[in-house]
Amino acid sequence: MFKLYYAPGTCALASHIALEEAGAAYTAERLDFKNSQQTTPQYLAINPKGRVPALVTDRGTLTETPAILAFIASSFPKAQLAPEDPFAFAQAQSFNSYLCSTVHVSHAHKMRGYRWAAEESSLADMKRKVPETMAAGFALIERDMLKGPWVMGEQYTICDPYLYTIGLWLEGDGVDLATLPKVAAHRKRMSERPAVQKVMAEEKA
Amino acid sequence: MFKLYYAPGTCALASHIALEEAGAAYTAERLDFKNSQQTTPQYLAINPKGRVPALVTDRGTLTETPAILAFIASSFPKAQLAPEDPFAFAQAQSFNSYLCSTVHVSHAHKMRGYRWAAEESSLADMKRKVPETMAAGFALIERDMLKGPWVMGEQYTICDPYLYTIGLWLEGDGVDLATLPKVAAHRKRMSERPAVQKVMAEEKA
Repeated sequence: MFKLYYAPGTCALASHIALEEAGAAYTAERLDFKNSQQTTPQYLAINPKGRVPALVTDRGTLTETPAILAFIASSFPKAQLAPEDPFAFAQAQSFNSYLCSTVHVSHAHKMRGYRWAAEESSLADMKRKVPETMAAGFALIERDMLKGPWVMGEQYTICDPYLYTIGLWLEGDGVDLATLPKVAAHRKRMSERPAVQKVMAEEKA
Repeated sequence: MFKLYYAPGTCALASHIALEEAGAAYTAERLDFKNSQQTTPQYLAINPKGRVPALVTDRGTLTETPAILAFIASSFPKAQLAPEDPFAFAQAQSFNSYLCSTVHVSHAHKMRGYRWAAEESSLADMKRKVPETMAAGFALIERDMLKGPWVMGEQYTICDPYLYTIGLWLEGDGVDLATLPKVAAHRKRMSERPAVQKVMAEEKA
Protein backbone atom coordinates (compact mmCIF):
# COMPACT_ATOMS: atom_id res chain seq x y z
CA MET A 1 0.00 0.00 0.00
CA PHE A 2 1.40 3.36 -1.08
CA LYS A 3 0.48 6.77 0.26
CA LEU A 4 0.84 9.78 -2.01
CA TYR A 5 1.01 13.29 -0.59
CA TYR A 6 -0.26 15.82 -3.12
CA ALA A 7 -1.79 19.25 -3.51
CA PRO A 8 -4.19 20.21 -6.31
CA GLY A 9 -2.61 22.14 -9.16
CA THR A 10 0.89 20.80 -8.50
CA CYS A 11 3.11 18.37 -10.37
CA ALA A 12 2.01 15.65 -7.92
CA LEU A 13 -0.88 15.08 -10.32
CA ALA A 14 1.47 13.11 -12.59
CA SER A 15 2.29 10.57 -9.87
CA HIS A 16 -1.37 10.42 -8.85
CA ILE A 17 -2.43 9.51 -12.39
CA ALA A 18 0.40 7.00 -12.74
CA LEU A 19 -0.67 5.21 -9.54
CA GLU A 20 -4.20 4.98 -10.90
CA GLU A 21 -3.05 3.77 -14.32
CA ALA A 22 -0.84 1.15 -12.66
CA GLY A 23 -3.75 -0.26 -10.69
CA ALA A 24 -1.75 0.34 -7.50
CA ALA A 25 -3.23 0.03 -4.04
CA TYR A 26 -2.76 3.53 -2.67
CA THR A 27 -4.25 6.35 -0.72
CA ALA A 28 -3.88 10.00 -1.66
CA GLU A 29 -3.44 12.56 1.10
CA ARG A 30 -4.13 16.15 0.21
CA LEU A 31 -1.99 18.92 1.68
CA ASP A 32 -3.43 22.38 2.21
CA PHE A 33 -0.90 24.60 0.44
CA LYS A 34 -2.98 27.74 1.16
CA ASN A 35 -2.24 27.20 4.83
CA SER A 36 1.35 26.09 4.12
CA GLN A 37 0.74 22.58 5.43
CA GLN A 38 3.80 21.47 3.43
CA THR A 39 6.07 23.36 5.82
CA THR A 40 4.63 22.04 9.10
CA PRO A 41 6.98 19.96 11.28
CA GLN A 42 4.65 16.97 10.73
CA TYR A 43 5.07 17.08 6.98
CA LEU A 44 8.76 18.04 7.04
CA ALA A 45 9.31 14.82 9.00
CA ILE A 46 7.89 12.98 5.98
CA ASN A 47 9.54 15.13 3.32
CA PRO A 48 12.24 17.53 4.53
CA LYS A 49 12.05 19.34 1.19
CA GLY A 50 8.59 20.66 2.08
CA ARG A 51 7.27 19.86 -1.38
CA VAL A 52 4.96 17.45 -3.12
CA PRO A 53 4.81 14.77 -4.35
CA ALA A 54 6.06 12.41 -1.68
CA LEU A 55 5.33 8.70 -2.04
CA VAL A 56 5.41 6.74 1.20
CA THR A 57 6.17 3.05 0.69
CA ASP A 58 6.96 0.25 3.11
CA ARG A 59 10.61 0.71 2.15
CA GLY A 60 10.68 4.44 2.81
CA THR A 61 9.60 7.71 1.25
CA LEU A 62 10.42 8.74 -2.31
CA THR A 63 10.45 12.29 -3.65
CA GLU A 64 11.05 13.88 -7.08
CA THR A 65 8.53 13.17 -9.82
CA PRO A 66 10.81 11.42 -12.36
CA ALA A 67 11.99 8.98 -9.67
CA ILE A 68 8.49 8.31 -8.36
CA LEU A 69 7.10 7.76 -11.85
CA ALA A 70 9.84 5.28 -12.78
CA PHE A 71 9.38 3.49 -9.45
CA ILE A 72 5.63 3.13 -10.04
CA ALA A 73 6.35 1.71 -13.51
CA SER A 74 8.88 -0.80 -12.18
CA SER A 75 6.58 -1.79 -9.28
CA PHE A 76 3.69 -2.64 -11.62
CA PRO A 77 5.32 -4.14 -14.70
CA LYS A 78 2.03 -5.56 -16.01
CA ALA A 79 0.77 -2.03 -16.59
CA GLN A 80 3.68 -1.49 -19.01
CA LEU A 81 4.11 2.15 -18.07
CA ALA A 82 7.78 2.31 -19.06
CA PRO A 83 9.65 0.97 -22.09
CA GLU A 84 11.54 -2.25 -21.34
CA ASP A 85 14.31 -1.53 -23.82
CA PRO A 86 17.09 0.30 -21.92
CA PHE A 87 17.65 2.97 -24.57
CA ALA A 88 13.94 3.74 -24.85
CA PHE A 89 13.72 3.81 -21.05
CA ALA A 90 16.57 6.33 -21.05
CA GLN A 91 14.70 8.44 -23.60
CA ALA A 92 11.64 8.41 -21.35
CA GLN A 93 13.78 9.44 -18.38
CA SER A 94 15.35 12.17 -20.49
CA PHE A 95 11.92 13.55 -21.37
CA ASN A 96 10.81 13.55 -17.74
CA SER A 97 14.09 15.09 -16.63
CA TYR A 98 13.57 17.92 -19.14
CA LEU A 99 10.11 18.56 -17.72
CA CYS A 100 11.36 18.73 -14.13
CA SER A 101 14.60 20.64 -14.60
CA THR A 102 13.63 23.06 -17.38
CA VAL A 103 9.88 23.36 -17.99
CA HIS A 104 8.66 23.10 -14.40
CA VAL A 105 11.44 25.50 -13.38
CA SER A 106 10.28 28.02 -16.01
CA HIS A 107 6.75 27.82 -14.61
CA ALA A 108 7.94 28.21 -11.03
CA HIS A 109 9.29 31.68 -11.81
CA LYS A 110 5.72 32.96 -12.02
CA MET A 111 4.66 32.40 -8.40
CA ARG A 112 7.82 31.21 -6.66
CA GLY A 113 10.43 33.64 -7.89
CA TYR A 114 11.26 34.36 -4.24
CA ARG A 115 13.22 31.12 -4.29
CA TRP A 116 15.86 32.81 -6.47
CA ALA A 117 15.57 36.56 -5.86
CA ALA A 118 14.52 39.01 -3.14
CA GLU A 119 13.34 42.28 -4.73
CA GLU A 120 9.72 42.83 -5.81
CA SER A 121 10.97 44.23 -9.12
CA SER A 122 12.89 41.00 -9.81
CA LEU A 123 9.85 38.86 -9.07
CA ALA A 124 7.74 40.98 -11.44
CA ASP A 125 10.44 40.73 -14.09
CA MET A 126 10.56 36.94 -13.74
CA LYS A 127 6.79 36.74 -13.96
CA ARG A 128 6.79 38.72 -17.22
CA LYS A 129 9.19 36.27 -18.84
CA VAL A 130 7.21 33.10 -18.03
CA PRO A 131 5.05 33.13 -21.20
CA GLU A 132 8.23 33.23 -23.30
CA THR A 133 10.11 30.48 -21.45
CA MET A 134 7.09 28.18 -21.22
CA ALA A 135 6.35 28.69 -24.92
CA ALA A 136 9.97 27.87 -25.79
CA GLY A 137 9.98 24.72 -23.65
CA PHE A 138 6.77 23.47 -25.17
CA ALA A 139 7.78 24.45 -28.71
CA LEU A 140 10.68 22.01 -28.39
CA ILE A 141 8.33 19.33 -27.06
CA GLU A 142 5.88 19.97 -29.91
CA ARG A 143 8.58 19.91 -32.58
CA ASP A 144 11.04 17.26 -31.41
CA MET A 145 9.81 15.18 -28.50
CA LEU A 146 6.12 14.28 -28.62
CA LYS A 147 6.05 11.39 -31.07
CA GLY A 148 2.30 10.76 -30.94
CA PRO A 149 -0.18 9.50 -30.13
CA TRP A 150 1.76 9.30 -26.84
CA VAL A 151 5.04 10.93 -25.90
CA MET A 152 7.05 7.79 -26.63
CA GLY A 153 4.95 6.79 -29.65
CA GLU A 154 2.49 3.91 -29.54
CA GLN A 155 3.14 3.02 -25.91
CA TYR A 156 1.45 5.01 -23.15
CA THR A 157 4.15 5.61 -20.53
CA ILE A 158 5.03 7.58 -17.41
CA CYS A 159 5.92 10.49 -19.71
CA ASP A 160 2.27 11.04 -20.58
CA PRO A 161 0.76 11.96 -17.21
CA TYR A 162 3.77 14.20 -16.57
CA LEU A 163 3.40 16.08 -19.87
CA TYR A 164 -0.35 16.34 -19.28
CA THR A 165 0.21 17.77 -15.79
CA ILE A 166 2.74 20.42 -16.77
CA GLY A 167 0.73 21.21 -19.92
CA LEU A 168 -2.30 22.13 -17.81
CA TRP A 169 -0.34 25.19 -16.65
CA LEU A 170 0.06 26.62 -20.17
CA GLU A 171 -2.98 28.89 -20.34
CA GLY A 172 -2.32 30.29 -16.87
CA ASP A 173 1.26 30.90 -17.94
CA GLY A 174 0.15 32.95 -20.93
CA VAL A 175 0.77 30.38 -23.68
CA ASP A 176 -1.88 29.87 -26.36
CA LEU A 177 -2.55 26.13 -26.66
CA ALA A 178 -3.62 26.68 -30.28
CA THR A 179 0.07 27.22 -31.13
CA LEU A 180 0.78 23.66 -29.93
CA PRO A 181 -1.57 21.35 -31.85
CA LYS A 182 0.19 18.10 -30.92
CA VAL A 183 0.27 19.05 -27.24
CA ALA A 184 -3.42 20.02 -27.43
CA ALA A 185 -4.34 16.69 -29.04
CA HIS A 186 -2.32 14.88 -26.37
CA ARG A 187 -4.23 16.70 -23.63
CA LYS A 188 -7.55 15.71 -25.20
CA ARG A 189 -6.42 12.09 -25.51
CA MET A 190 -5.36 12.11 -21.86
CA SER A 191 -8.64 13.66 -20.70
CA GLU A 192 -10.53 10.72 -22.21
CA ARG A 193 -8.71 8.11 -20.11
CA PRO A 194 -10.74 6.76 -17.17
CA ALA A 195 -7.76 6.94 -14.80
CA VAL A 196 -7.25 10.61 -15.62
CA GLN A 197 -10.94 11.40 -15.19
CA LYS A 198 -11.03 9.64 -11.83
CA VAL A 199 -7.96 11.43 -10.47
CA MET A 200 -9.02 14.84 -11.80
CA ALA A 201 -12.40 14.45 -10.12
CA GLU A 202 -10.73 13.49 -6.84
CA GLU A 203 -8.25 16.39 -6.91
CA LYS A 204 -11.00 18.87 -7.75
CA ALA A 205 -13.43 17.57 -5.11
CA MET B 1 31.25 3.43 -29.20
CA PHE B 2 29.76 6.46 -27.45
CA LYS B 3 30.58 10.11 -28.10
CA LEU B 4 30.11 12.59 -25.27
CA TYR B 5 29.82 16.31 -25.96
CA TYR B 6 31.01 18.34 -22.99
CA ALA B 7 32.42 21.66 -21.92
CA PRO B 8 34.80 22.12 -18.98
CA GLY B 9 33.17 23.38 -15.80
CA THR B 10 29.72 22.10 -16.72
CA CYS B 11 27.59 19.27 -15.37
CA ALA B 12 28.76 17.13 -18.30
CA LEU B 13 31.68 16.19 -16.06
CA ALA B 14 29.39 13.74 -14.24
CA SER B 15 28.65 11.76 -17.40
CA HIS B 16 32.31 11.95 -18.43
CA ILE B 17 33.42 10.40 -15.13
CA ALA B 18 30.68 7.76 -15.30
CA LEU B 19 31.79 6.68 -18.78
CA GLU B 20 35.34 6.31 -17.48
CA GLU B 21 34.23 4.39 -14.37
CA ALA B 22 32.10 2.09 -16.53
CA GLY B 23 35.07 1.19 -18.74
CA ALA B 24 33.05 2.35 -21.75
CA ALA B 25 34.51 2.78 -25.21
CA TYR B 26 33.92 6.47 -25.85
CA THR B 27 35.31 9.67 -27.21
CA ALA B 28 34.82 13.05 -25.55
CA GLU B 29 34.31 16.08 -27.76
CA ARG B 30 34.86 19.46 -26.15
CA LEU B 31 32.64 22.38 -27.08
CA ASP B 32 33.98 25.91 -26.92
CA PHE B 33 31.37 27.68 -24.75
CA LYS B 34 33.34 30.95 -24.82
CA ASN B 35 32.61 31.12 -28.54
CA SER B 36 29.05 29.77 -28.08
CA GLN B 37 29.76 26.63 -30.04
CA GLN B 38 26.75 25.03 -28.32
CA THR B 39 24.41 27.29 -30.30
CA THR B 40 25.89 26.68 -33.77
CA PRO B 41 23.61 24.99 -36.33
CA GLN B 42 26.02 22.04 -36.37
CA TYR B 43 25.61 21.39 -32.65
CA LEU B 44 21.90 22.21 -32.54
CA ALA B 45 21.45 19.43 -35.11
CA ILE B 46 22.93 17.07 -32.51
CA ASN B 47 21.22 18.61 -29.47
CA PRO B 48 18.44 21.12 -30.19
CA LYS B 49 18.59 22.24 -26.55
CA GLY B 50 22.01 23.80 -27.16
CA ARG B 51 23.35 22.38 -23.92
CA VAL B 52 25.74 19.75 -22.68
CA PRO B 53 25.99 16.87 -21.99
CA ALA B 54 24.81 15.05 -25.09
CA LEU B 55 25.67 11.38 -25.47
CA VAL B 56 25.65 10.10 -29.03
CA THR B 57 25.01 6.36 -29.28
CA ASP B 58 24.31 4.08 -32.22
CA ARG B 59 20.63 4.23 -31.21
CA GLY B 60 20.41 7.99 -31.09
CA THR B 61 21.42 10.93 -28.90
CA LEU B 62 20.58 11.21 -25.22
CA THR B 63 20.43 14.40 -23.21
CA GLU B 64 19.78 15.26 -19.53
CA THR B 65 22.34 14.12 -16.97
CA PRO B 66 20.12 11.82 -14.83
CA ALA B 67 19.00 9.92 -17.96
CA ILE B 68 22.53 9.66 -19.37
CA LEU B 69 23.95 8.45 -16.04
CA ALA B 70 21.30 5.75 -15.64
CA PHE B 71 21.81 4.68 -19.24
CA ILE B 72 25.57 4.33 -18.72
CA ALA B 73 24.91 2.23 -15.62
CA SER B 74 22.47 -0.05 -17.43
CA SER B 75 24.78 -0.38 -20.46
CA PHE B 76 27.70 -1.56 -18.32
CA PRO B 77 26.14 -3.72 -15.60
CA LYS B 78 29.47 -5.24 -14.60
CA ALA B 79 30.62 -1.86 -13.32
CA GLN B 80 27.70 -1.90 -10.85
CA LEU B 81 27.16 1.84 -11.05
CA ALA B 82 23.48 1.67 -10.06
CA PRO B 83 21.67 -0.31 -7.36
CA GLU B 84 19.91 -3.38 -8.74
CA ASP B 85 17.09 -3.24 -6.19
CA PRO B 86 14.24 -1.17 -7.70
CA PHE B 87 13.61 0.91 -4.56
CA ALA B 88 17.29 1.70 -4.12
CA PHE B 89 17.49 2.54 -7.83
CA ALA B 90 14.57 4.93 -7.35
CA GLN B 91 16.38 6.55 -4.41
CA ALA B 92 19.43 7.06 -6.61
CA GLN B 93 17.25 8.59 -9.33
CA SER B 94 15.59 10.80 -6.73
CA PHE B 95 18.98 12.08 -5.58
CA ASN B 96 20.08 12.84 -9.13
CA SER B 97 16.75 14.47 -9.92
CA TYR B 98 17.17 16.76 -6.91
CA LEU B 99 20.60 17.78 -8.16
CA CYS B 100 19.34 18.62 -11.65
CA SER B 101 16.04 20.29 -10.82
CA THR B 102 16.93 22.13 -7.61
CA VAL B 103 20.67 22.43 -6.95
CA HIS B 104 21.88 22.93 -10.51
CA VAL B 105 19.03 25.40 -11.05
CA SER B 106 20.11 27.38 -7.97
CA HIS B 107 23.62 27.58 -9.37
CA ALA B 108 22.41 28.63 -12.82
CA HIS B 109 20.95 31.83 -11.37
CA LYS B 110 24.48 33.16 -10.91
CA MET B 111 25.55 33.38 -14.54
CA ARG B 112 22.44 32.44 -16.52
CA GLY B 113 19.74 34.48 -14.83
CA TYR B 114 18.86 35.88 -18.29
CA ARG B 115 17.02 32.64 -18.85
CA TRP B 116 14.33 33.77 -16.41
CA ALA B 117 14.50 37.58 -16.25
CA ALA B 118 15.45 40.54 -18.44
CA GLU B 119 16.53 43.48 -16.25
CA GLU B 120 20.12 43.92 -15.06
CA SER B 121 18.85 44.62 -11.54
CA SER B 122 17.05 41.23 -11.50
CA LEU B 123 20.15 39.39 -12.65
CA ALA B 124 22.19 41.07 -9.91
CA ASP B 125 19.49 40.20 -7.36
CA MET B 126 19.51 36.56 -8.45
CA LYS B 127 23.28 36.45 -8.25
CA ARG B 128 23.23 37.75 -4.68
CA LYS B 129 20.93 34.94 -3.57
CA VAL B 130 23.01 32.06 -4.98
CA PRO B 131 25.19 31.55 -1.87
CA GLU B 132 22.01 31.11 0.21
CA THR B 133 20.21 28.72 -2.15
CA MET B 134 23.31 26.62 -2.83
CA ALA B 135 24.04 26.42 0.90
CA ALA B 136 20.45 25.32 1.58
CA GLY B 137 20.54 22.65 -1.13
CA PHE B 138 23.81 21.24 0.12
CA ALA B 139 22.76 21.46 3.77
CA LEU B 140 19.96 19.02 2.98
CA ILE B 141 22.39 16.73 1.16
CA GLU B 142 24.82 16.88 4.08
CA ARG B 143 22.12 16.21 6.69
CA ASP B 144 19.76 13.76 5.00
CA MET B 145 21.05 12.34 1.74
CA LEU B 146 24.77 11.55 1.69
CA LYS B 147 24.95 8.25 3.52
CA GLY B 148 28.71 7.76 3.27
CA PRO B 149 31.23 6.80 2.23
CA TRP B 150 29.29 7.18 -1.04
CA VAL B 151 25.95 8.85 -1.64
CA MET B 152 24.05 5.57 -1.54
CA GLY B 153 26.20 4.08 1.22
CA GLU B 154 28.75 1.34 0.56
CA GLN B 155 28.12 1.16 -3.19
CA TYR B 156 29.73 3.72 -5.48
CA THR B 157 27.00 4.72 -7.95
CA ILE B 158 26.04 7.26 -10.62
CA CYS B 159 25.06 9.63 -7.80
CA ASP B 160 28.69 10.11 -6.83
CA PRO B 161 30.16 11.72 -9.94
CA TYR B 162 27.08 13.96 -10.13
CA LEU B 163 27.40 15.15 -6.52
CA TYR B 164 31.14 15.65 -7.03
CA THR B 165 30.50 17.72 -10.18
CA ILE B 166 27.89 20.04 -8.71
CA GLY B 167 29.87 20.27 -5.46
CA LEU B 168 32.88 21.66 -7.33
CA TRP B 169 30.83 24.83 -7.87
CA LEU B 170 30.38 25.51 -4.14
CA GLU B 171 33.35 27.80 -3.52
CA GLY B 172 32.61 29.83 -6.65
CA ASP B 173 29.03 30.13 -5.49
CA GLY B 174 30.10 31.55 -2.13
CA VAL B 175 29.56 28.49 0.05
CA ASP B 176 32.23 27.54 2.58
CA LEU B 177 33.03 23.85 2.14
CA ALA B 178 34.08 23.71 5.80
CA THR B 179 30.38 23.93 6.74
CA LEU B 180 29.79 20.66 4.85
CA PRO B 181 32.23 18.10 6.27
CA LYS B 182 30.57 15.05 4.71
CA VAL B 183 30.44 16.69 1.30
CA ALA B 184 34.09 17.74 1.69
CA ALA B 185 35.14 14.19 2.61
CA HIS B 186 33.18 12.88 -0.37
CA ARG B 187 35.01 15.26 -2.69
CA LYS B 188 38.35 14.10 -1.34
CA ARG B 189 37.37 10.45 -1.76
CA MET B 190 36.29 11.15 -5.34
CA SER B 191 39.50 13.01 -6.15
CA GLU B 192 41.51 9.90 -5.24
CA ARG B 193 39.76 7.69 -7.83
CA PRO B 194 41.85 7.03 -10.97
CA ALA B 195 38.84 7.58 -13.27
CA VAL B 196 38.21 10.99 -11.74
CA GLN B 197 41.87 11.97 -11.98
CA LYS B 198 42.02 10.92 -15.63
CA VAL B 199 38.89 12.83 -16.62
CA MET B 200 39.83 15.95 -14.64
CA ALA B 201 43.23 16.00 -16.35
CA GLU B 202 41.58 15.66 -19.75
CA GLU B 203 39.00 18.40 -19.12
CA LYS B 204 41.69 20.76 -17.81
CA ALA B 205 44.15 20.09 -20.65
